[in-house]
Amino acid sequence: MSAAADIGGTFDRLWSELLPIGRTPVGGYRRFAWNDADLEARAWFVAAAAARGLAVQSDRNGNLWAWWLPIGWLGDPRQAFVTGSHLDSVPDGGAFDGALGVVCALCAIDLLRSRGVQPLRPIAVAVFADEEGARFGVACAGSRLATGALEPSAARALTDVDGVSLHQAMRRAGVDTTQLGRDDETLRRVGIFVELHIEQGQALIDLDAPLGIGMGIWPHGRWRFSFEGEANHAGTTRMTDRRDPMQPFAAAVLAARILASKHGGVATFGRVHVEPNGTNAIPSTVTAWLDARGPDQAVLDAIVSGVSANAHARAAAERVELAVAGESVSAVVEFGADANARLHRVLDSVAGLGVVACGGRVPDLGTGAGHDAGVLSSVVPTAMLFVRNPTGVSHSPAEFAERDDCLAGVEALAAVMSDWVSTAPVGAS
Amino acid sequence: MSAAADIGGTFDRLWSELLPIGRTPVGGYRRFAWNDADLEARAWFVAAAAARGLAVQSDRNGNLWAWWLPIGWLGDPRQAFVTGSHLDSVPDGGAFDGALGVVCALCAIDLLRSRGVQPLRPIAVAVFADEEGARFGVACAGSRLATGALEPSAARALTDVDGVSLHQAMRRAGVDTTQLGRDDETLRRVGIFVELHIEQGQALIDLDAPLGIGMGIWPHGRWRFSFEGEANHAGTTRMTDRRDPMQPFAAAVLAARILASKHGGVATFGRVHVEPNGTNAIPSTVTAWLDARGPDQAVLDAIVSGVSANAHARAAAERVELAVAGESVSAVVEFGADANARLHRVLDSVAGLGVVACGGRVPDLGTGAGHDAGVLSSVVPTAMLFVRNPTGVSHSPAEFAERDDCLAGVEALAAVMSDWVSTAPVGAS
Repeated sequence: MSAAADIGGTFDRLWSELLPIGRTPVGGYRRFAWNDADLEARAWFVAAAAARGLAVQSDRNGNLWAWWLPIGWLGDPRQAFVTGSHLDSVPDGGAFDGALGVVCALCAIDLLRSRGVQPLRPIAVAVFADEEGARFGVACAGSRLATGALEPSAARALTDVDGVSLHQAMRRAGVDTTQLGRDDETLRRVGIFVELHIEQGQALIDLDAPLGIGMGIWPHGRWRFSFEGEANHAGTTRMTDRRDPMQPFAAAVLAARILASKHGGVATFGRVHVEPNGTNAIPSTVTAWLDARGPDQAVLDAIVSGVSANAHARAAAERVELAVAGESVSAVVEFGADANARLHRVLDSVAGLGVVACGGRVPDLGTGAGHDAGVLSSVVPTAMLFVRNPTGVSHSPAEFAERDDCLAGVEALAAVMSDWVSTAPVGAS
Repeated sequence: MSAAADIGGTFDRLWSELLPIGRTPVGGYRRFAWNDADLEARAWFVAAAAARGLAVQSDRNGNLWAWWLPIGWLGDPRQAFVTGSHLDSVPDGGAFDGALGVVCALCAIDLLRSRGVQPLRPIAVAVFADEEGARFGVACAGSRLATGALEPSAARALTDVDGVSLHQAMRRAGVDTTQLGRDDETLRRVGIFVELHIEQGQALIDLDAPLGIGMGIWPHGRWRFSFEGEANHAGTTRMTDRRDPMQPFAAAVLAARILASKHGGVATFGRVHVEPNGTNAIPSTVTAWLDARGPDQAVLDAIVSGVSANAHARAAAERVELAVAGESVSAVVEFGADANARLHRVLDSVAGLGVVACGGRVPDLGTGAGHDAGVLSSVVPTAMLFVRNPTGVSHSPAEFAERDDCLAGVEALAAVMSDWVSTAPVGAS
């Protein structure tokens, strides 16, 4: 039996263990940060790492780290090769987003071991907490806390729709939230973080390539639009007497589509809360979130300011109050040229990755999606690998990757990992 | 102490007992059909009726009837004067909608008794179940079931947002749902139903009158717009690849405003459910309810067909599926000319109702709001009294009526009641 066949079996086993956790009857996932399904997925990871003899630690911000240290390594890890991703999901998300990076990371370790590789540098698989921000509204909360991009006091005070605070949710899971915050001790162990992720678009389909290397992440963010009107009876209030916050919200939705198309970015209103949300009541408030992204800051600014201007104009005509507030806004991320070149040097020469159609070079991809790798890039060298998604669909149960492409991801991750740990750490320990 | 002063004290006491039931910390009400607050309000009514020696019954559909029978009355009530309203609320509704009619009805009985009136016909105060439809989506469910306008099997299968069926909710409250349905035995007891209600608009303010007599109810209804698109990642899905159901929903919202204004009706999208409702996910579905009303059927049809056409056009451009389904649609209601004339004959001559500014005639009002009186009008003679609302605001905590106007309502209701029961029933029993 070949090593590839072995690793296929391992992949299938890990994947089938993780697949049912937090899945709804209709096939989507509801693994929201620190809910029961998320805790079950974290426990699965701890058990899978322990089964491989990896030492698992939770850092101060609830991120999990499973360590494989070189034989005879003493003291703290440093210049480590870190891979991994996240296990939480958006509401009714797919099976691959985040989870694929974690499963492939564990498989890559198994593959190196099956080939007798003895690493000269530490290796870790990381599972970052609360990447999607589905429950508490801030994406990449675990990595943002670790890098200091999210204030601990602000994080603790975040609440979910039921009024449960992040503090309460983490404490329930046994995390001491007084310790939240910038974690240099953990991050200085990282030599490079390489996150493997399912592609969330159709570029690799168009290129006929199973894998891509991330070039960077578009500037992006979430803006909360809070429309405040006046609740009133839907049947008895004259149209001219209304202060209906649904009207300027609708104008903002249409403006987002038009302006994103015009400027070459993307913009979405996917989340809306209406109060009181009664059929026969004009709403008192509509709160909606604009998710906007662009290839550069100028495009992003044009979209957000244009949508805001349209919403403000319609709100004023309706005598509705409007406040627009940025949430988890991220500047453009460019992964380091050094890391990118090193990935190309390794991967462009690996046979069997199936990128012949691209002239032997693994394609470079930009992405509009935020990732923990993007957050960490401000502190440590980072890179990303993307696995082809034949539907191009993401954040949906229809999200999918072929098993052969997933295994190509394992091979690529193992090759990059093997390259990194083939030399001992440089400099003083 | 005058009778009016006595009745003011009674009104204050009843009002203060009812006021805290189901009130949220911000002052709105969440008395939804058969929830704990609604059951508490029903228990309050049973106790208040019992304290007056009224015999309380729940009919087969969960509507409550408190009876005052003439001395020596034998057998079933017939040709009764029935008044009352409902105790449930819209989400975050006001204190007066429904509740005022119930409290004024009890006060009117006290007022007649304080004046030594001995009724020659039965009197009842009715509390209709589930008038607002806030929980199960069908307004006036209790009266619609009683008149046969709502099928028992369809009613039992209605579900709330938590998946609890009306059957389950009523059974929990001790109602035998196998007995739901058209209830001729109860309705043939009714000689006339007069519902007192807070005005849900500004007509009485404009007329400077404390009271009005209902002429009829505009044709109205709720239409469910179900938009089905495709969930996908908000950051990585090109604008041209999207099937975003929020877009045609927004077009429908703007069309509703424009068409209602153009045709002289009202139209509202006040209730929306978005799936998965994640900030970084294009929605898979948007479900929204159009509440539309017009002074006649032609206006209503023009609004609904116009909004549907706009929504369908935008949905087709977005490759989004759209289904539009009518829910609790009601034709125009005109209260009987005989009942209206009788109310005018009584009320226009009652001193102290303060309608001098209207030339001594109580003003007639049409309304865009649905009421149990409208549903019952297909089976029994009905009439309505409206009490001035100085804010004009309804379905909101800001809904309000002055105490003096409420007491004028009690006086008016007592006068109409007294007139009706001053003669013995006609015809065979």
